[in-house]
Amino acid sequence: PPAWDRATRPPPGPLQPPGLPLAPCRSFSNSKIQVELDESSGVAMMKFKSPPVNSLSLEFLTEFSISLEKLENDRACRGVIITSALPKIFSSGLDITEMCGKSMEHYAEFWRAVQEMWLRLYGSSMVTVAAVNGSSPAGGCLVALSCDYRIMAENPKFSIGLNEAQLGIVAPFWFKDTFVNTVGHRIAERSLQLGSLHPAPEAHKLGLVDELVPEEKLMEKAAAVMAQWLALPDHARQLTKTMMRKAVLDRLVAHREEDIKNFITFISKESIQKSLRMYMEMLKKKK
Amino acid sequence: PPAWDRATRPPPGPLQPPGLPLAPCRSFSNSKIQVELDESSGVAMMKFKSPPVNSLSLEFLTEFSISLEKLENDRACRGVIITSALPKIFSSGLDITEMCGKSMEHYAEFWRAVQEMWLRLYGSSMVTVAAVNGSSPAGGCLVALSCDYRIMAENPKFSIGLNEAQLGIVAPFWFKDTFVNTVGHRIAERSLQLGSLHPAPEAHKLGLVDELVPEEKLMEKAAAVMAQWLALPDHARQLTKTMMRKAVLDRLVAHREEDIKNFITFISKESIQKSLRMYMEMLKKKK
Amino acid sequence: PPAWDRATRPPPGPLQPPGLPLAPCRSFSNSKIQVELDESSGVAMMKFKSPPVNSLSLEFLTEFSISLEKLENDRACRGVIITSALPKIFSSGLDITEMCGKSMEHYAEFWRAVQEMWLRLYGSSMVTVAAVNGSSPAGGCLVALSCDYRIMAENPKFSIGLNEAQLGIVAPFWFKDTFVNTVGHRIAERSLQLGSLHPAPEAHKLGLVDELVPEEKLMEKAAAVMAQWLALPDHARQLTKTMMRKAVLDRLVAHREEDIKNFITFISKESIQKSLRMYMEMLKKKK
Repeated sequence: PPAWDRATRPPPGPLQPPGLPLAPCRSFSNSKIQVELDESSGVAMMKFKSPPVNSLSLEFLTEFSISLEKLENDRACRGVIITSALPKIFSSGLDITEMCGKSMEHYAEFWRAVQEMWLRLYGSSMVTVAAVNGSSPAGGCLVALSCDYRIMAENPKFSIGLNEAQLGIVAPFWFKDTFVNTVGHRIAERSLQLGSLHPAPEAHKLGLVDELVPEEKLMEKAAAVMAQWLALPDHARQLTKTMMRKAVLDRLVAHREEDIKNFITFISKESIQKSLRMYMEMLKKKK
Repeated sequence: PPAWDRATRPPPGPLQPPGLPLAPCRSFSNSKIQVELDESSGVAMMKFKSPPVNSLSLEFLTEFSISLEKLENDRACRGVIITSALPKIFSSGLDITEMCGKSMEHYAEFWRAVQEMWLRLYGSSMVTVAAVNGSSPAGGCLVALSCDYRIMAENPKFSIGLNEAQLGIVAPFWFKDTFVNTVGHRIAERSLQLGSLHPAPEAHKLGLVDELVPEEKLMEKAAAVMAQWLALPDHARQLTKTMMRKAVLDRLVAHREEDIKNFITFISKESIQKSLRMYMEMLKKKK
Repeated sequence: PPAWDRATRPPPGPLQPPGLPLAPCRSFSNSKIQVELDESSGVAMMKFKSPPVNSLSLEFLTEFSISLEKLENDRACRGVIITSALPKIFSSGLDITEMCGKSMEHYAEFWRAVQEMWLRLYGSSMVTVAAVNGSSPAGGCLVALSCDYRIMAENPKFSIGLNEAQLGIVAPFWFKDTFVNTVGHRIAERSLQLGSLHPAPEAHKLGLVDELVPEEKLMEKAAAVMAQWLALPDHARQLTKTMMRKAVLDRLVAHREEDIKNFITFISKESIQKSLRMYMEMLKKKK
């Protein structure tokens, strides 16, 4: 059963009193993501480490979903902090090479992986905190929006937003739903139509991120926020989260196959393929 | 028919011109709530007077609903100001003793009374102004949220919020709907998951209350706000209110029995009973 | 097919590079509205010129819808700036004389024209910018709310709002939906019940307009905003707009005849007719 229906998940044991020696960390790592679980606090640190820009390739997404599932099923884990191991970038979003010149089957597999990641993250029963330590466009923004709390480095050179429209493509309805749930209808309408990338200070003002801190304080702050959220009894917090997010999660679950079909139809259009190729050329020249 | 479907309610007579001698006040009082209706202005003052903390017991809720019904049916009454006769507390919310160690029948009766109160207050055709002159957690916050306008004493020691999650329990969906309608989805999501009690200044900033005034100005301000709202023709204002609130009211009406069943199942769990007993112990020690 | 379902509209040619000689302007004008299309930029200027107050009569609404349709079907047009040719007033809203002492057939025809205008404007595939250069009550406010972006002259004597309740009437559900999509549920609930007309600075603070500028800078600013929105590829922007607005547009389409019936029933009531006659008397005396 998906995480957001597992309100019956058994509550974890009591928090270890402070001052005791730390329990050993469990950690696992695959090629794109590194995870360390501190069993004493119940908090996992998940670091994206897929150079150059943590783009969400099929492989990355698969590892992401598997990592989330592992933690979700680990009774020692109550919360996860998501951040980037790379400088200046949190995640650049969906990997465009996965959407360009590939087979229908590949598009379907890729899109299902995008959906799966979002369903697991937005519906996670763990406390999820995004420590946004770099820019976070498009799918990268979605990852942040899907967490329970977003802290961003206050560097105005870092920006965040669902900028799909700039590339000539359209954010799917569940990206939009997640955005509207965070910033409200009007801000979403304007930002999505303009494909805006908001510098950190503006993103904070719009409610796209909850807090700005100097970059060197980011992880400290993330840990403090996590401790605040973990002070609540898991069961009540999880049921409350489910109550807030279920409608939007259910909507994708109910239309999942249709959403995949729509994506394939849209992305296979010659005009869209051309836009994406031009965008990739532009990115290459930038380097 | 419930109040919010009585758009056909006959309009009251014109406001009495100012300067005329005041008509005699009608008043009624039962053991928990005192009501005085000033027929000259059409405004009733409803004061909670159930020491020590105006907790919403079955008896309190029943008197509350009856008082609202009386006023609703009284053509001389167009608006009601709700406040507390006790110092420092508006209402402490649902009476935990009604949810602890009682029979299934009792839980059902109690929950139906909570629903009934909310349906009458949120759906009232009168103008309802909350003069929040003390702290207002959980069900107390719901009472304030269900009014048309909330004025709070600007004392930062007074706090307000739906803090159910702190107690290990979950606010029902219609508490949540009322909260979301007031502060939007994101603020509600965060505040409900953390079970936050917001000090008055923060509550104002979040939109949880509309205005802060010094405590000694509270009743004067409430009367001024009421006069502003009563300057509108009742019929158009009532239809507009219905249009704004009907979807959320209808949702509970459609799921009322199911909601009672869910409450009973949840509250009878041994883990929840234990949480509530611990919370009551803690409250007793505090005294 | 309505504009918001024409996501398949062929994309217009590329923007003409700046610096080239301007193409000749196409313009058309009927008795109430003047339209000039600058083919070089793809931007039409639509000016309301129906003295004394640009009230939305049946004739005005018909011309408005026809003008929008013409532009929508003109591949040279990508955006439209809507403003008033009269001083101090953007539009006074629905023409009360159309709702007073007329036949049922007339009420039906009038209301259908109001619906038609909104469906075309709120669902337009063009970029729509309101340059609100005067007061904009009721239906005038709806016109502004239906655009993609609202810039208002920062004159505090100019006000905007859905003040129907002040006249003893009720804004229809789709006026309300448009308002809620712009300012959120709580602000809409309060403003609609009080029938508030917000002075420009307050309107800006509430999010009812996006920006205030000195009156003499209004058109310049509108052109700059339009250029910003037109920098996006039309197709992606249009699909995004549809995604944001479709639910609310579909709701009226699904209930259009019922909405007309409700309007006729309501407006034919003797009590409502009396209110409107009194209001018109008051307006006449004001002159």
